[in-house]
Amino acid sequence: EQAFDFSEHPHRRYNPLTDTWVLCSPHRAKRPWLGQVESLPPDNRPQHDPTCYLCPGNTRSDGANQNSDYTSTFVFTNDFAAVKLSQPNYHNELANTVGTDSEAQSLLSSLLKVESVTGTCRVVCFSPRHDLTLAEMETEHIQEVVQTWTRETEDLGAVHGVNYVQIFENKGAAMGCSNPHPHGQIWATSDIPTEPARELASLAKYRASHDGACLLCNYVKLESKVSSAAKTSSTPSSSRVVFSTEHFICLVPFWAVWPYEVILLSLRHASTLAELTPAEQHDLADCLRRVTARYDNLFATSFPYSMGIHQAPTAGEHKEDGTMHLHLHWYPPLLRSATVRKFLVGYEMMAEAQRDLTAEQAAERLRQCSEVHYKTRG
Amino acid sequence: EQAFDFSEHPHRRYNPLTDTWVLCSPHRAKRPWLGQVESLPPDNRPQHDPTCYLCPGNTRSDGANQNSDYTSTFVFTNDFAAVKLSQPNYHNELANTVGTDSEAQSLLSSLLKVESVTGTCRVVCFSPRHDLTLAEMETEHIQEVVQTWTRETEDLGAVHGVNYVQIFENKGAAMGCSNPHPHGQIWATSDIPTEPARELASLAKYRASHDGACLLCNYVKLESKVSSAAKTSSTPSSSRVVFSTEHFICLVPFWAVWPYEVILLSLRHASTLAELTPAEQHDLADCLRRVTARYDNLFATSFPYSMGIHQAPTAGEHKEDGTMHLHLHWYPPLLRSATVRKFLVGYEMMAEAQRDLTAEQAAERLRQCSEVHYKTRG
Ligand SMILES: O=P(O)(O)O[C@H]1O[C@H](CO)[C@@H](O)[C@H](O)[C@H]1O
Ligand SMILES: O=P(O)(O)O[C@H]1O[C@H](CO)[C@@H](O)[C@H](O)[C@H]1O
Repeated sequence: EQAFDFSEHPHRRYNPLTDTWVLCSPHRAKRPWLGQVESLPPDNRPQHDPTCYLCPGNTRSDGANQNSDYTSTFVFTNDFAAVKLSQPNYHNELANTVGTDSEAQSLLSSLLKVESVTGTCRVVCFSPRHDLTLAEMETEHIQEVVQTWTRETEDLGAVHGVNYVQIFENKGAAMGCSNPHPHGQIWATSDIPTEPARELASLAKYRASHDGACLLCNYVKLESKVSSAAKTSSTPSSSRVVFSTEHFICLVPFWAVWPYEVILLSLRHASTLAELTPAEQHDLADCLRRVTARYDNLFATSFPYSMGIHQAPTAGEHKEDGTMHLHLHWYPPLLRSATVRKFLVGYEMMAEAQRDLTAEQAAERLRQCSEVHYKTRG
Repeated sequence: EQAFDFSEHPHRRYNPLTDTWVLCSPHRAKRPWLGQVESLPPDNRPQHDPTCYLCPGNTRSDGANQNSDYTSTFVFTNDFAAVKLSQPNYHNELANTVGTDSEAQSLLSSLLKVESVTGTCRVVCFSPRHDLTLAEMETEHIQEVVQTWTRETEDLGAVHGVNYVQIFENKGAAMGCSNPHPHGQIWATSDIPTEPARELASLAKYRASHDGACLLCNYVKLESKVSSAAKTSSTPSSSRVVFSTEHFICLVPFWAVWPYEVILLSLRHASTLAELTPAEQHDLADCLRRVTARYDNLFATSFPYSMGIHQAPTAGEHKEDGTMHLHLHWYPPLLRSATVRKFLVGYEMMAEAQRDLTAEQAAERLRQCSEVHYKTRG
């Protein structure tokens, strides 16, 4: 009988962090592309754009506030924040929508669940330079971004009622980003949102059933072993490691959904940005540059993605119990070129995530990419 | 104290079918739009396009097969199917990637889970007419589509190794659809995919803890009561029902994620398309027309969406135990107009789904839409 080949035969892989599966159909990469082709954004931005609402000194999108003449990072509260620090308490007002019918009241209590959410949303400009991205910034300047994220997590986490701080970046028009000025967002909320809540539940469960071991520490250990075995064995393309540094490791997770999805993990079991030493902070900044430079070089384009940082909640049982393992996710949509993306649509929404190349193939492609940005090469 | 107002104050709602939450920020609908604007596809298609690989008599995208001169629906196996009916069995080949290191083998078995997936993928052309969509087809012709889906579910379900049949449609370039010819897909697999598996687990759990009652039957009962109460009370906009017929009800679910997401449910507790009577089948066809016509009329554009049908698995414990309640989901991306869509990106991917208008507001807008397609009006 022919052996099962991961780079040929459809299979599904389990994501132990979120308890979901992904269908892998590696042979699908061979089909001709007939779908939508993205338009490329103009890539000749000035260092300062007088019409940009994020550039230093300019007026913001609400037409009222003005940015300072900042020279490093710049943080402000989102002018159209998704959550607010104060609002009326929720007193089961939903019950009013069915009146006094007792059967309706009992159905309602078994089916509809609501929570008020308070918090705040901030915007973090990464640089005063309108024409840069993390991929083109210097490590020292990215370190200022890391420091800003660290400080904001601590400040927001200390606000009464905030229990979780989500840092993220939407980059590129394909990811709904409305402004190419390098920036990200921070949404701090009273609830622990679905994704980190699921991860925490999985991490806690693994810990309880594996003598206190961390799922992600073990995963890092395993991927390093696979990578070493790949160097000496007949399975050269089985490694999922893209690169590793003294303090971090970047890999395409075994259960990746997006074509070139990566996860960046601290080698040491840290739970928050605040725990990082200055050397680790500097290393993280350099990893941010290296991941994004490889991405840009992959298709010689400014690579769109959503990036997010998962840290411990800022309150509650998992604040200081070490359950969380600090990590960053990158979810980039491009599949074949600068203009051909992967759509997670019908089957993916209704049934299960599906991908067209394996995590190992993606890691191999990313390993081959230079960390010197294509724009700066001769 | 001011009362909590669902159309003003951020809150999150729980989805009891998938055990996830959605953050609702109704006031965000007021922010100015600065993001990507979709380009509109040309909407002057001929009835037959000689270059379309789905039109009757034409050559397909693989360059080899040819379509029949079909006059109703037309079904063929996807030329680049994501799964195949036969392939080598999986014999833990993954273990080879770490060699004989016993620590690595034990880490691997606790972290990496793989299943081989077999099955088949089919394409269903809804009509020989290149220029139509479900929204513009006649109910009688849509009924032929429903009959085709029903037959395909039975045929594929009877194939050895197939345990679940997922019917879906990706419509519009914004949803990764590569061809405007009216068509959908069917992926039949050996596994029960993540989404229906989650729904089945939730439905089974509810049933066990509510004297055998069905979560979705109870939900339909509740929404009808809310809708009646809305007519006589001071909360006129609390109804989430878009329309109902003799056999089906269409509503914006309380926990909707996409701006104009709807769910279409059978009023009777059916689990599969095959259980529908001819009258119910005709009614379902008419509902498909009514939902999609309202959608097209909302922004006077051919409305993009992904649609999917959830039925009972075709094998296993939930095949005939009545746990599943037949329903259809529509996930459309448009938010404000024909060219402005909602992006589920950074926060949504990393933390939790987020929406900008409430389910009740969306239902109100959809109720106001005509069921007579805008193109056919004077
Ligand atoms: O099979 P198609 O229409 O070429 O492909 C489309 O639908 C599939 C199923 O939802 C997705 O996996 C693809 O990303 C999408 O482009
Ligand atoms: O806040 P922005 O950048 O205007 O908005 C963008 O990011 C948000 C958070 O991921 C999303 O909810 C929006 O759909 C997206 O357009």
